[in-house]
Amino acid sequence: MPFSRIYNKYISSDRFYVRKLSNILGFTPGNVRLYKMAFRHKSVAVTIKDGAKNSNERLEFLGDAVLGSVVAELLFKLYPYKDEGFLTEMRSKIVSRVNLNQLSRKLGFNELIEYDARMISFPNKQGSLLGDAFEALIGAVYLDRGYVFTKNFLLNRIIKPHVDIHLLEITETNFKSRLIEWCQHNGKDVQFQQVDNPEGESVKMFSIEALVDGKVVGLGRDFNKKSAEKLAAEKACENLKILEVL
Amino acid sequence: MPFSRIYNKYISSDRFYVRKLSNILGFTPGNVRLYKMAFRHKSVAVTIKDGAKNSNERLEFLGDAVLGSVVAELLFKLYPYKDEGFLTEMRSKIVSRVNLNQLSRKLGFNELIEYDARMISFPNKQGSLLGDAFEALIGAVYLDRGYVFTKNFLLNRIIKPHVDIHLLEITETNFKSRLIEWCQHNGKDVQFQQVDNPEGESVKMFSIEALVDGKVVGLGRDFNKKSAEKLAAEKACENLKILEVL
Repeated sequence: MPFSRIYNKYISSDRFYVRKLSNILGFTPGNVRLYKMAFRHKSVAVTIKDGAKNSNERLEFLGDAVLGSVVAELLFKLYPYKDEGFLTEMRSKIVSRVNLNQLSRKLGFNELIEYDARMISFPNKQGSLLGDAFEALIGAVYLDRGYVFTKNFLLNRIIKPHVDIHLLEITETNFKSRLIEWCQHNGKDVQFQQVDNPEGESVKMFSIEALVDGKVVGLGRDFNKKSAEKLAAEKACENLKILEVL
Repeated sequence: MPFSRIYNKYISSDRFYVRKLSNILGFTPGNVRLYKMAFRHKSVAVTIKDGAKNSNERLEFLGDAVLGSVVAELLFKLYPYKDEGFLTEMRSKIVSRVNLNQLSRKLGFNELIEYDARMISFPNKQGSLLGDAFEALIGAVYLDRGYVFTKNFLLNRIIKPHVDIHLLEITETNFKSRLIEWCQHNGKDVQFQQVDNPEGESVKMFSIEALVDGKVVGLGRDFNKKSAEKLAAEKACENLKILEVL
C-alpha cells in the first residue's frame, strides 16, 4: 500500500471515516476528498466557484458512464450469442434506479451519505439519493484508481456477490402488473382506457390512460395499443412512486 | 510490436486489409477478426449460432458505452465548474449520430464498411451506417487493446484533431431553426400549431404539431408549449431525415 493510503487510514484526521469507508469498499481510498464528494447530496453542498457546487452530481455523471461501460462489457462477454437489443435491455435492468438503490443500501452507503435531514420526510427523494450516490462513488473510484481497478471492484465486490443476472434475465420489468398488484394491495381500483387523439391528428397513434380510482395517473402514446398501455402503466408507477417502495 | 501484429501486417493473407486499416487507425490491429466485424453491416452478415449474426451491432453496443465513458471523463476534466446538465448536453452533441457520421467519413471508414450495395439508394440508411460502424470500431479497439489504449486513441487520434469541442459548446442543436432553414431551402411551407389534448385528459400537457406543406410531420407533447414545439421540430427533422444531410 502506498504511503498516502497508509497515512489516510492510520494518521490523518479523517482516519475513522477512511476506515469505515475501507470496510465497506474493501480497499483503502487514496483521494478521500473524492469519496466525500461522492456521498454529498446537493442539499448540503456549498458553492465552490462560478456557481458550481461540491455535490455528487458531476461524479454521478461520470460514474454512470463508467458503470454503463463495465456492465456493457460484462454482458457482451456473458451472452456471446445475444443481440444488442437483449444486451441493452439487460443493462437497463442492472443499472435501473431501483436496482442501484438496493445495491447502495445493501453495501451500507446509507450510513455515508450526507444530506439535509429534512429530506427524510420525502422517502422517494431519499430513494433516488441512494442510487445517485452509488453512481457517484463509481466516478470517485474511477478517478482515484483508474478503469481496470474500478471494473474489477464492480465485478468482484458488487455485481458477482449482489446481482443475480440470470434472475434479472427472466424477470420482466412489467409495469402493468406492478401497478395492478399495488392497487390490489392498497384496495384501489385500476383501469386502462383508450382516449381520442388530438383532433385532426394524422399520425397513427394510440393514447391510453391509466386510471386509479377514476383519476388519470398516467398517459401513454404509441403506435400500437399494447405499447401505449405499457407506457401509461410506467408513467403511473412513476407518478405513484411505486418503483421506489419495491 | 508483438509478433502477432507483425504477422498480421506483413505475412497473413489479410495483410493488405491490415495495412489499410493501420494507415487509417494509426496502429496495427491485433485481432483482425474483430475489426472486420466492426465494419460489417447486418445487411451482409450471416447467422453464426442460435440466430446470432456476425454483424457489427453487438460491437456497436459495447463501443457506444466505452465512447460514452471516455467522453464523460474528458468533459468532467475539461469543465471542472460546469454542472452535470451541461456535461450531459455536451456529451450528446459529441456522440450525436450526425457528429459520428461525419467523423466516420473524415476518417475514411466509408472505404472499409461492408454492406449490401442495394442500400446505397437509401442515403439515410447509409448515413447512420457510418456512425454505427464508428461505435463498433471503438468496441473492437477496446476488446483488442483495452480501455487506456482506446481512451488515448479516441482522444489523440480522433477527438483532438477532428472535434471542435468549444465550437460545439456554443452551437445549439436547434431543431426548429434547422427545420425552418430546410423548408426555406426546399421551397416548402412550415407551420406549428397547437392541437387539443385527448379528451378528458387531466394531465397538463401541450400538444404541438409541426406541419410542412400542410402535412403533419411531427408531434411534440410536453408540459410547456416551447418544449412541445421543440420536440415536434425534432420529430419532424427525424421523419424528414433533415439531420442526415447536414
